[in-house]
Amino acid sequence: MEEVSRKKQSSIILALDFPFQNPQDRENLLTKAQSILKEVSPHICAIKINHHPTLPLGIFGGVQTIVNQAHKAGLLAIMDCKVNDIGATNQTIAEYYYAAGFDALIANPFIGWEEGLQPIFDIAKKHQRGVILLAYMSHKGAAEGYGQTVIDSETHTQTKQYLSFAKKALKYGADGVVVGATVPEKIREIHQVLGKNVPIYSPGVGAQGGGAATALEAGARYLIVGREIVQSADPAVAAEKLKASAKSPI
Amino acid sequence: MEEVSRKKQSSIILALDFPFQNPQDRENLLTKAQSILKEVSPHICAIKINHHPTLPLGIFGGVQTIVNQAHKAGLLAIMDCKVNDIGATNQTIAEYYYAAGFDALIANPFIGWEEGLQPIFDIAKKHQRGVILLAYMSHKGAAEGYGQTVIDSETHTQTKQYLSFAKKALKYGADGVVVGATVPEKIREIHQVLGKNVPIYSPGVGAQGGGAATALEAGARYLIVGREIVQSADPAVAAEKLKASAKSPI
Repeated sequence: MEEVSRKKQSSIILALDFPFQNPQDRENLLTKAQSILKEVSPHICAIKINHHPTLPLGIFGGVQTIVNQAHKAGLLAIMDCKVNDIGATNQTIAEYYYAAGFDALIANPFIGWEEGLQPIFDIAKKHQRGVILLAYMSHKGAAEGYGQTVIDSETHTQTKQYLSFAKKALKYGADGVVVGATVPEKIREIHQVLGKNVPIYSPGVGAQGGGAATALEAGARYLIVGREIVQSADPAVAAEKLKASAKSPI
Repeated sequence: MEEVSRKKQSSIILALDFPFQNPQDRENLLTKAQSILKEVSPHICAIKINHHPTLPLGIFGGVQTIVNQAHKAGLLAIMDCKVNDIGATNQTIAEYYYAAGFDALIANPFIGWEEGLQPIFDIAKKHQRGVILLAYMSHKGAAEGYGQTVIDSETHTQTKQYLSFAKKALKYGADGVVVGATVPEKIREIHQVLGKNVPIYSPGVGAQGGGAATALEAGARYLIVGREIVQSADPAVAAEKLKASAKSPI
């Protein structure tokens, strides 16, 4: 990721998120996604795909076409599936997404290691792909789970859930963690735990209220931007602006 | 769900989970799923679908065919997507699954209410569908998250995460909670919180080591069974046996 980001001189990851559309209009969705990706490609280092396009288009249908297009443009493709199931299911999910061409997937560390994250890391290693873990999400309700106070199972002292997740990401050698740009103070705290060992991916810039420069200054390495680009009148200009405002530390 | 279960005289929900298969063999997967469903239909009250068939088949492709087949057999269809995203994404996910015909979906209460669960419950209400929340999963690593001790944000006292989730399910009027059959003592504790207000759906019977009678005795209302039926030499016989051993309280 670091290599691609340097080459493309960008820390911006495009989230190809579209709101619900009549499933009959699937072809339009694919055309739109391909067109935006084409325009925006010079200004980003990767794409992130969530269920918005995978549910209507299918991962071996339209989504694979988008992933291939991203790869041809020298970009990486991250699947934001937030895996949070039992081991056998996580393994199946990871196998399918990697088979569809994704370079990394996002998982929720809340599921724990044994029969949870471990099979995902095993499959990732087998296919030489990445695993990115959630640490703190960008929506308000995140305070209830990611922000809650928990008792550390080893030290038996109180700690914050997101710090416990950050420590696990470090321990398991995750390829990144996700921390919302809407909570720059959490980015700072998590960055203190991770240092340069695990990069922070930060969604929530723009539509959700997060600031690009603030997030980067707090310690984010990559900014994940969706609606701010996708729903813009001119996606390429929006992406270029964000790239510049991000003042990438490259 | 209660009505269908009474009519079908069964508390068994078939989990149509298949391990990863070469995406080229998608047609075989659909044929297999349809054939098992046909054989097993008389002995179950619903099907539960996870990403195992949705990723290779697509929800508006093969999976919709399976959901339609279930409906024609008088069964309900639950999507086990374990939604755990931000509000706008959850909303899109819920819209697509309900549009594909699912009667209920499963969500992770760890995401919190505001901009998390709330939009899912709103969409469910709009379409008169169900929302089932995770309370304690069936795999070993569940102890790390679902089993952890947290500080209750209202009482400021220590409590277990799964009890906090159970209380939320009651508060939000969830249509059910999921508690693994591998942890009958947790079913019992959660059942004490929920009483008859929110039914417990219990996966993990058979392949994962959970016992049907033990789970029901502890307070589970429905048993979700996958591999024990799907990978059996005779799925219909396996399902019928489970139905009988479950000694449904109907």
